[in-house]
Formats: sequence, structure tokens, C-alpha cells
Amino acid sequence: MCWKAHKKITTGTYENKFGVPFEQIEGVYARAKKFKHLRLRGLQMHIGSQITEVTPFEQAVRKMIPLVMRLKEKHDLEFFSIGGGLGIVYKPALASGASAWWKTAAAKEILTPDKYAKRLVPILKPLGLRVLMEPGRFISGNAGALVTQVEFLKRTGKKNFLIVDAAMNDLIRPAFYEAYHEIVPLIRKSGTKLNSDVVGPICESGDFFCQDRLLPRAGQGDYLAILSAGAYGSVMASNYNTRSLAAEVLVSGKQAALVRERQPVEQIWSGEKVAQWLK
Amino acid sequence: MCWKAHKKITTGTYENKFGVPFEQIEGVYARAKKFKHLRLRGLQMHIGSQITEVTPFEQAVRKMIPLVMRLKEKHDLEFFSIGGGLGIVYKPALASGASAWWKTAAAKEILTPDKYAKRLVPILKPLGLRVLMEPGRFISGNAGALVTQVEFLKRTGKKNFLIVDAAMNDLIRPAFYEAYHEIVPLIRKSGTKLNSDVVGPICESGDFFCQDRLLPRAGQGDYLAILSAGAYGSVMASNYNTRSLAAEVLVSGKQAALVRERQPVEQIWSGEKVAQWLK
Repeated sequence: MCWKAHKKITTGTYENKFGVPFEQIEGVYARAKKFKHLRLRGLQMHIGSQITEVTPFEQAVRKMIPLVMRLKEKHDLEFFSIGGGLGIVYKPALASGASAWWKTAAAKEILTPDKYAKRLVPILKPLGLRVLMEPGRFISGNAGALVTQVEFLKRTGKKNFLIVDAAMNDLIRPAFYEAYHEIVPLIRKSGTKLNSDVVGPICESGDFFCQDRLLPRAGQGDYLAILSAGAYGSVMASNYNTRSLAAEVLVSGKQAALVRERQPVEQIWSGEKVAQWLK
Repeated sequence: MCWKAHKKITTGTYENKFGVPFEQIEGVYARAKKFKHLRLRGLQMHIGSQITEVTPFEQAVRKMIPLVMRLKEKHDLEFFSIGGGLGIVYKPALASGASAWWKTAAAKEILTPDKYAKRLVPILKPLGLRVLMEPGRFISGNAGALVTQVEFLKRTGKKNFLIVDAAMNDLIRPAFYEAYHEIVPLIRKSGTKLNSDVVGPICESGDFFCQDRLLPRAGQGDYLAILSAGAYGSVMASNYNTRSLAAEVLVSGKQAALVRERQPVEQIWSGEKVAQWLK
């Protein structure tokens, strides 16, 4: 029951590890009821991640409702969690440019909390249960950007590589999920665009933020913002190639504050010890 | 010039970011010679990672030799680095079982330092240069194992999931490169085998160590060793899902020593601060 989710982030199929198969749920509740130190309080569904339409959520909720009603009656449930999975727009892909995509016609297709609520609340309300949800990426995803500096524009004749100082250890989504992240220069540029790969300094060909994308021509010292990095960015960061975790800055209007210090490189090996017999 | 390397770890093609295109090298050296604070000392090639035959290395070295000779003459070079990329055996896949695969016929096909040297030294010696190489994974890859405990055997009717306490944050290779890692129980088991997925507790379907693999039936509390985890294991580890980095133990014969303490969970947020305006 999962549409268009990348295979690594599907959840609601028989082939992945999550949850209890639909037809086993009532049996599981009946067994759980017999344990006197367990209290059955609710039911949770989760159909997948990064889903950008309401229909799959509506279909899933409609499928669950008869079951939820039966379980509520038998087990005096308090809540029904409809899970997470609200997708965000990573790729505006609009002719008018990234700065105004949310004003355009295509934006009307975008999943909003309002559309989500309008379709689901009328179906959920009659249940008389507290409704829970987990809109993590929806809240933080487009609130974060990874800012990076260009070290060098390398032109090989066949490809143009914008080598930047951020790398896949800072944001693994493009390499890991083939994910699209919009990339824009911090200072708007007119003039020629160049078909570019934005790549980091890590010793893997997978260390890229985009490939063969038409970007404003940038050069040494320019800053780029890799957008939509507020979810599954820093939480998946590693110290690969002995690279420290990046600093994080919170911006609110014209205020800015360092909310996470750049990791001191010494912390990377701070837990290491030499075996006694090697001393 | 790269055989059978996963697309994320190829290096020697025009489509990836590494190196200088072959036909531009002499021009680059000629230009570099004009900088009086640069000293040209050597030349390095790198054809890719995890290559398990000598032939690609031999072909690459043979292609390089005329160029190295010309550059040596012109620029008085000291060394020729033939790079890394020596592959290791991740998947014994032999009927005789994992414990003795290195004694079998198939083992004769395995790349060894001896075979590598026998084919390359005679070609390299006449150059009269110091030869460098980077056999990182070859040294450490099969020297490390990730040991994990089974939390639960979950049988859904369609799949069997061995849920373990290690996760993709500890060893990302299966999820990231579709890499094969041999998995063996610490205590050998006879009896039934079960077609199993070994999965971790992280909130992604990509959090697995193997899928649909015939493994000895294990249950809660059993320990499994995920082999060949000594390279690209801990160095690519992250704190995803607020999971601390694993402890590391060095074993030598009957001696064992903790050489990296389990990361204290508090270290994960130790650099975080609250913005002044939120206090």
C-alpha cells in the first residue's frame, strides 16, 4: 500500500520488516490483552515515506477504519496514529525559477497540511479517537539548507565538476537514495549556465550532490546552498574520511545563532585506545 | 578502465571526478614545472575499487609505462604509485561452508599479494622508480567482523526477519552498495536453515544486512558475526536514529582489548546549543 516511495523507504508491504500483517492484527490484540501488565492504548499505521498525494493516505485510512472500530470496541482504545510519510517538494522543476515556485500553478498540486486535513478529518472524526501523526520531514525538510563553498571548477572536456567542501558524509541522500536536492548559488548569478556535477572531496564516485545539471557557472570561493537538507541531513551524517560533523546555524528573520558547533576533529578518535600488548 | 567495480566506487572513467584525463597529463606536468615552489616527485594512477583480478591492474600499468618513462626523463620523478583497488572476497559462496572456503579450488582464483606482485613487479622494475600502492581494504577488510545480537525472529508468513541490534548506521555497505557480507552464527548450529532477512532497528527498509538468505535458524539472544566489516565499516558509521557508535575490540590470538569505547550517547548532542532568542 505504498505509492512512489523509494524502495529503501517503503514500509507498508509484506516484503519489509515493519508492522504486523493486516490479517494478523486482531489476533495479536487478542493475545496482548491476556498479559496483565500490558495496556492496549491504540493502533498505528504507516504506509511509507515521502508520499506527496493525499489519496494513498485516504485509501489506507478507509481500509483501517472498520478494523479500528472493532478494536476500539473490544479493547477500549484511546488513539489511532495515522503515521508519517507526508512528502515534501524537493524538485520544484518550474520554468519560473526556484525563487517563486510556490506561487505557480504546479504548486497547486503540492501536498499541504490543509489538503491533508480536509480529506482525512471528516473520515477520522466519527471514530471518536485521538488522532496522532508524525510529520517530521514535512516540518523540517525544507527548513534546512546545506551551505557549501566551491573549491574548484574542474573541466575535463567531457564533464564539468564543481568541487565543493561539503560531501556525502554531510548529506548522504543524493548518493544513498538517488535523491534530488535543488542547488542554488547564495548570490544570484546571471550569465551562462553550465552542465555540472556538484561533487565533494570524498574518495568515492558516489560523493555527489547532483549530476549533469544545468547550473549557473560558479567558481572558486562561491557559495552554494543545497536545499531541503533539514530532514535526513545531519542525522545521517558520518565522520567518513575523518571529516568533522558540520556546524549548524539557526536562522529566524534577521537573527542567526550557532546551535551546533562544528565537531572538533579530535572527538573523532577520542574513544580510541591502544591495546596493552602493542604498547 | 574499470572492471566490475560498483558504480559508486569506479574511479578511472571520464565520467567521474577523479584524476586528470590521460591525454592532458603531460601538459599538466609541463605547466606545473613552471611554478618554482612546486616540485614534481611522482605520478599516481587509480583504476577503481574492489577489483579482484590482476589483469586490469596489469593492463593499466602497461598503458601507463610509456608515459611514466617520458615524465621520468623530463621531470626527474622519484615514484610511481599504482594506487589501490585490490579487491577482497566478500562472498565465498562455496558448498564446503564458510569455515574452510580458503582451502578450496575456488580460492585459487582469489587475488593475493603474491599473484599481484608476480605479474606487476617484472613490468615495473625496469622503470627504476620507487613503486607505491594503497592496499587498504586488502589489509583490513576481512580482518574485521561486526558482532550483533538477535533481538527477535519475526515470521510474517511471507518472510522471516532476524531483527538484530546492529543497524545500517554501524555498517552501511549492504544498504549503500548492495554489498554482500557473509553472516555466520558465533556458535555453530546444525539443524534447519531458514530463508532470512537480517535487519536492524532503524526506521528504513534499507536497514538490512542480507535479504532472502538461507541461514541457520537463530533466535532471541543468539549472536551473529557479519564478516568482512573491517573496511568501510566504522569509518562510514553515523549516529542515525540517535544510535551511539559501536565499541571496537582488537583480537590477537587469545588476547582481546577494547580499542574504541562505545560512544557515550551524550556525545551525540554535546555540541548543541539553544539560540539566545529561544531561552
